[in-house]
Amino acid sequence: MAAVPVSARDPRISAFLSTRTPSGSVLAEGLWAHQCLLQSDADLDVLVICPDLMEPSAGRLAHDLTARARTAVEVSAKTFARISRRTKPSGLASLVRLPRWPVSPGRIGDRPIDAATRVLVADGIEYATNLGALIRIVDASGTGALLLTNRQARLEHPDVFTASRGTLLTTPVVDFGEPSSAADWLLRAGFTIRLALPGAPGGFRTPAGDPSGPTAIVVGSEGRGVSPQWRSVPHEPISIPMRGRADSLNVAVAAGVLLFA
Amino acid sequence: MAAVPVSARDPRISAFLSTRTPSGSVLAEGLWAHQCLLQSDADLDVLVICPDLMEPSAGRLAHDLTARARTAVEVSAKTFARISRRTKPSGLASLVRLPRWPVSPGRIGDRPIDAATRVLVADGIEYATNLGALIRIVDASGTGALLLTNRQARLEHPDVFTASRGTLLTTPVVDFGEPSSAADWLLRAGFTIRLALPGAPGGFRTPAGDPSGPTAIVVGSEGRGVSPQWRSVPHEPISIPMRGRADSLNVAVAAGVLLFA
Repeated sequence: MAAVPVSARDPRISAFLSTRTPSGSVLAEGLWAHQCLLQSDADLDVLVICPDLMEPSAGRLAHDLTARARTAVEVSAKTFARISRRTKPSGLASLVRLPRWPVSPGRIGDRPIDAATRVLVADGIEYATNLGALIRIVDASGTGALLLTNRQARLEHPDVFTASRGTLLTTPVVDFGEPSSAADWLLRAGFTIRLALPGAPGGFRTPAGDPSGPTAIVVGSEGRGVSPQWRSVPHEPISIPMRGRADSLNVAVAAGVLLFA
Repeated sequence: MAAVPVSARDPRISAFLSTRTPSGSVLAEGLWAHQCLLQSDADLDVLVICPDLMEPSAGRLAHDLTARARTAVEVSAKTFARISRRTKPSGLASLVRLPRWPVSPGRIGDRPIDAATRVLVADGIEYATNLGALIRIVDASGTGALLLTNRQARLEHPDVFTASRGTLLTTPVVDFGEPSSAADWLLRAGFTIRLALPGAPGGFRTPAGDPSGPTAIVVGSEGRGVSPQWRSVPHEPISIPMRGRADSLNVAVAAGVLLFA
């Protein structure tokens, strides 16, 4: 199926012109993002291509994605410039459905929970770039999922996709809302909950030897740390020792240290 | 000595109005930044205060800083709004001299090098926020210094100060320019050089037991990794295993994992 030429007034373009990406979707733009897309199972709702702006090497990619997209449209360079967030638009943009990861006591999406399962819980995250960075770390460290509570940043923000290096499309991310509902699910599924609390005794390294059961590591927001709701849940406190003047690490750096320790 | 009332045309205000902070200096703004300043030994060249914008609780801080500043001036709310980078200016801004950390074979600034000394080398860093984040991690992990080679981001950029959480004023940062000059100094001072290279065998953890000598860990730029110049220096390759789809970590996260491991 070839892409259909359309104008900027076409309803299929409207999500690209809005300042707020529709709930449950994400906008991807550029060659690199579309290579990520092609390698994922993500549901491609609308592909927008502008042959006049595309590098010749992008032709094959555009062809493969056009075959996969629910809708593929072609626009002029002038229209593409309006939907692009870049100073040098590359002629490829997509509206992609975020994958859904339903949880049950034994599973996250299609992944079973076992004694070696580890998840990261991020509480109250305010910045999209940090949310994306956390997803990239969860992916890179082989952590089972990212659970979110008290989320402030939107998963749909384009910076999440970019900072995640595209791993937003393949990494289980579950938004629980209230900490109590995440804690209920974790405790029912047999997780030990470890809270990152500045100054807590006991270090931060995973005990050596066989994993004794699934573990959840909870990190707090950039400004306020882990919320009081999490502190009232049965937990083991953990902390990264601060050896200088800084009293904390950036939340993504802290998560990296905790998940790779 | 009290602050002298001046207009926006006063030469002491010019550095604050320029888009480029003068070499060797940094602009600090706001209550939090000035608390950092007061706790550091930093050389305060020009303090600008605007009593009309300051919170009452900032009065004591302004008084103590006025006593320490080489020059202290007072401006109107209108002038302060022109020099401020914030939507809600807090009435405190400073031009601060960056501390200098001269190196000799046995020392970095006033700190002697011994068998337990560890330094981070960051090669080709492009973004001010990453540079600041690296300084914060060097401080928090008790690492001896941050050495820079092929630096792209300016140390004087306001985002460096902010992302460093003020530790820019107290953490040894040495800009070597060419990798060869940093490598020469490190090798002469007896450092083992460990390069973070994606996919390198050998893991990333510091060997257990007594430190066998000073160690430098070299991380590369956001886009291109460690430069070829560093790869031709005698080194031990190290790497953080990537267990997912992402082929790398953000440079600050990687440095955090390597320095806290």
